[in-house]
Amino acid sequence: MSEILDLVGIFVFALSGALMGVRKRLDVVGMGVLAEMTALGGGVVRDLILNVRPAAFQSLGYVLVPVVATAIVFFWHPHVARVMPAILVLDAAGLGLFCAVGTEKALEYGLSPLHAALLGVTTGIGGGMLRDVLAGEIPTLLYDRQLYAVPAMLGSGAMAGLWAHGLYGWPATLAAAVLAFGLRLAAMRRNWRAPLARGIGE
Amino acid sequence: MSEILDLVGIFVFALSGALMGVRKRLDVVGMGVLAEMTALGGGVVRDLILNVRPAAFQSLGYVLVPVVATAIVFFWHPHVARVMPAILVLDAAGLGLFCAVGTEKALEYGLSPLHAALLGVTTGIGGGMLRDVLAGEIPTLLYDRQLYAVPAMLGSGAMAGLWAHGLYGWPATLAAAVLAFGLRLAAMRRNWRAPLARGIGE
Amino acid sequence: MSEILDLVGIFVFALSGALMGVRKRLDVVGMGVLAEMTALGGGVVRDLILNVRPAAFQSLGYVLVPVVATAIVFFWHPHVARVMPAILVLDAAGLGLFCAVGTEKALEYGLSPLHAALLGVTTGIGGGMLRDVLAGEIPTLLYDRQLYAVPAMLGSGAMAGLWAHGLYGWPATLAAAVLAFGLRLAAMRRNWRAPLARGIGE
Repeated sequence: MSEILDLVGIFVFALSGALMGVRKRLDVVGMGVLAEMTALGGGVVRDLILNVRPAAFQSLGYVLVPVVATAIVFFWHPHVARVMPAILVLDAAGLGLFCAVGTEKALEYGLSPLHAALLGVTTGIGGGMLRDVLAGEIPTLLYDRQLYAVPAMLGSGAMAGLWAHGLYGWPATLAAAVLAFGLRLAAMRRNWRAPLARGIGE
Repeated sequence: MSEILDLVGIFVFALSGALMGVRKRLDVVGMGVLAEMTALGGGVVRDLILNVRPAAFQSLGYVLVPVVATAIVFFWHPHVARVMPAILVLDAAGLGLFCAVGTEKALEYGLSPLHAALLGVTTGIGGGMLRDVLAGEIPTLLYDRQLYAVPAMLGSGAMAGLWAHGLYGWPATLAAAVLAFGLRLAAMRRNWRAPLARGIGE
Repeated sequence: MSEILDLVGIFVFALSGALMGVRKRLDVVGMGVLAEMTALGGGVVRDLILNVRPAAFQSLGYVLVPVVATAIVFFWHPHVARVMPAILVLDAAGLGLFCAVGTEKALEYGLSPLHAALLGVTTGIGGGMLRDVLAGEIPTLLYDRQLYAVPAMLGSGAMAGLWAHGLYGWPATLAAAVLAFGLRLAAMRRNWRAPLARGIGE
């Protein structure tokens, strides 16, 4: 079941990568490469840090799902102008799913709850950061003052906390993912902001 | 013999990195750092994913060849204006060699043909992407509408296909490398292009 | 004792990352993420190449020190205008410490002195390059014509040389770190420059 949540996360991150390709006027191949990297980047980094062979290089689904996502965006995306909001919502969904699944996998490999949550955040933000850096932009994570990393931390922290209390399995993972996703959406809608250091001004 | 092809790939990628340094007006040290990273980046990522210690940190040649390439560019490059075409041709040669050698190494470590080809593409495009991102540019791979990733995929796929039919050794590796190199050159010369998604326009 | 030097390096790199966040007008969360990545990036790459689980995902101090550094910068940094010189000095200190500690760890894991020094340089420059790329800038390392990589190479080389002569322990590590730090500061103060290739002009 965790594999299914992981594949859903790969799918929505791949959509966000392919849409970023549309926004940057890349051709279908560039869209596909960006979709693969956005979708698989966070998980590959997670698995390298856990010192296991990355799942993306063992499973057929991990490689093919971004191809499908690219085809959908290529044939179906309605107007370029509507792309950016869709990228942000899909990115929020991928963030939530990858935080929860990444934290869970790290706990299974014996990391402490704190470090598992840190690796979950890394998994969640890795793909999107790679997408933005490759597209020549400062990562949304850093630039966007609407809270981005905080929902990731709370979702990963919730996953680690549930695990530490003996609650795990796909309902716990899904709950942590939905928590991070909902907080990120709320931060975007309600314009929640973290403070700036003194002397910068608004 | 595969080691020799690998070193040739390192040499041409290092030349492309050092020439990018010239184009960006970096000094000789910056040229050298960019040459090392362009030449060794793809292979290091490949070896990390295969979960073995990167060849670049075990072999003398891997470290010294980019130093030689940097010296050649430093003393010999004729005019800055002629640099960009040379970067593109050398990059195509490195792409072909790294795709073929990377796929071969992945097959030797037991990956399936599909995943070996994916890792070969990663090896081929990794160094050049790192070079472009560090130089503050969107990777050629994404931006250039003349086919870049498709030759890499076909070269890596050819290598995996030959292997699956019991054909391997340096002639097979070289053939796959030449295939990817030739396709990339033809794509540049004949301006072959992949389609854009609807609504972007030309 | 090496752990203490490593933590000092993490602290000063984290300060430089948080200050870069101030310069880019990031909020406190973005500052923290940039601080963590700057501080931990070089060491994570080092440990991935050594094929061991990264220290950052096993130790409490590695994760918390950047949080403390971010809080200090958030409450205390005096004026944005004074930020850039401080980034450069702290970056030089982190460079020296990470080169020395990274080379030492690589030697302990059995790399040859040459490759250990190369990995020390990688450790030293990795975090700062990540910081600059994420902040949307060409890495200082490449762009700044005042010597940057040369002090790193000499510091790492000194560490490897001392080790090869049976001299190790924290005084040797600290001496190598101070050598690289001092050379980098001198290069900035005295404007030491590496040559450009012909045809670029000054």
